[in-house]
Amino acid sequence: MHGLGNDYVYVDCTKEMLKNPSKIARWISDRHFGVGSDGLILIKPSDKADFTMEMYNADGSRGEMCGNGIRCVGKFVYDQGLTGKTKLQVETLAGIKELKLFVEQGKVQSVRVDMGAPVLRAADVPVISQKEQVIDEPIHAGNAVYRMTCVSMGNPHAVVFVENVEDLNLEELGPQFEGNPCFPNRVNTEFIQVLDENRIRMRVWERGSGETFACGTGACAAVVASVLNGFTKDCVTVELLGGCLEIEWDTKGDTVFMTGPAATVFHGEIDVTKLEE
Amino acid sequence: MHGLGNDYVYVDCTKEMLKNPSKIARWISDRHFGVGSDGLILIKPSDKADFTMEMYNADGSRGEMCGNGIRCVGKFVYDQGLTGKTKLQVETLAGIKELKLFVEQGKVQSVRVDMGAPVLRAADVPVISQKEQVIDEPIHAGNAVYRMTCVSMGNPHAVVFVENVEDLNLEELGPQFEGNPCFPNRVNTEFIQVLDENRIRMRVWERGSGETFACGTGACAAVVASVLNGFTKDCVTVELLGGCLEIEWDTKGDTVFMTGPAATVFHGEIDVTKLEE
Repeated sequence: MHGLGNDYVYVDCTKEMLKNPSKIARWISDRHFGVGSDGLILIKPSDKADFTMEMYNADGSRGEMCGNGIRCVGKFVYDQGLTGKTKLQVETLAGIKELKLFVEQGKVQSVRVDMGAPVLRAADVPVISQKEQVIDEPIHAGNAVYRMTCVSMGNPHAVVFVENVEDLNLEELGPQFEGNPCFPNRVNTEFIQVLDENRIRMRVWERGSGETFACGTGACAAVVASVLNGFTKDCVTVELLGGCLEIEWDTKGDTVFMTGPAATVFHGEIDVTKLEE
Repeated sequence: MHGLGNDYVYVDCTKEMLKNPSKIARWISDRHFGVGSDGLILIKPSDKADFTMEMYNADGSRGEMCGNGIRCVGKFVYDQGLTGKTKLQVETLAGIKELKLFVEQGKVQSVRVDMGAPVLRAADVPVISQKEQVIDEPIHAGNAVYRMTCVSMGNPHAVVFVENVEDLNLEELGPQFEGNPCFPNRVNTEFIQVLDENRIRMRVWERGSGETFACGTGACAAVVASVLNGFTKDCVTVELLGGCLEIEWDTKGDTVFMTGPAATVFHGEIDVTKLEE
């Protein structure tokens, strides 16, 4: 399944658990010898929520949470008949997330995820600054000065507004933000072109991954930054390379809602018994 | 399925044909939005042989024949019960190929393919040369002179013997062979380290693809060249990045047999109706 091109292999582990999931994730993610994916997501029972999402990256490491992935979890459990509910709670390493499923002709087409409150306090993003919050502050990258706004959505983001995202050389520019010493945990950088007060275009450089098709937390951070800078209203369509997300910053409830598509590519069976030994 | 990491999606079209296979190949081959593969191989009925192998590359273009792919075709038709025979004829755009299946515990483990006669005549490889055959002739690449032997196995190969294949910078060296004007149809280049008279190690730069895990015709060409240069006997294990192939040049019958593994990664169902419209 994929959400805006961010693709994982999803396994129903509500009745039976996989052994050695980290090893299986490395094999399954391999394009040539395995299936080929960004990683493996196991759907397990939960004591506290409807399901647990257990995420492994392509290198076998644990992932905390993934906005594109959790939408696919919502589609998987509903389309496969594991639940009939359209409001769900999913336990992740980053806490319990609330999902709302939008169903057409018996299948989930898109999912809204409550991504929680944005964190603006510089020390909590974290970003080293004299200011309490980093909103429209200068940063040097390459031979230019950019203005950035820093937001954490559980992970750190630097949002930078530019005239045109297509012309940017992210291979060169991205690492200069990622490795800037003002970000003690490195940073994800969103480059944003404001199209109008309800629409922005975004390219993202993810720490450790480089440019990706889509980053759910990045889109949330981008809209929070756009509102804080007075560029957009609080309900915005974000155009990413992999497709569109609808982001709403509910400033009263202080939470960010992300709505986007989830797609099933294929269903299948794979023999992992040798890797479980 | 994959043969030494050369992976395709295989579809049983013995009863029903896909519409728009070229379009489906492009989508299915995409790592993020599709399955992720080197292409699509359809298994169809044949008037002249047991089955037809219809191959599409990841860009949707037709492929003539693929040594790693045809071994998987053999495994597919036997393991899926489409045939009970262990000697098969498979029709390809490059002619009818003879397969011998090696079965263990009811499943095909490896497949021997009759890859046909090597072509040595320079004009037929094709390679531009004063000589009738290009065996151990000099070629300039970078700042060095290499000795090459040219063989066609239906596609052109330049086989180059080196002391150590691991140290080679193929990204730099490969294109210098591929683009040399003495090869009117460009060339696949095999870099060979002779380990002993029954074993060689190979890295391959495929025209249009770059370095790959394995190239069946390249391994055949490499063994023909090794025999012609007196480095090996006519039955040789070829170590490639993706695994091993056993190559036998039957000089009496003037044909090259390639034996190697075929692996099933997963079975599944995919909805292609939208792409068939």
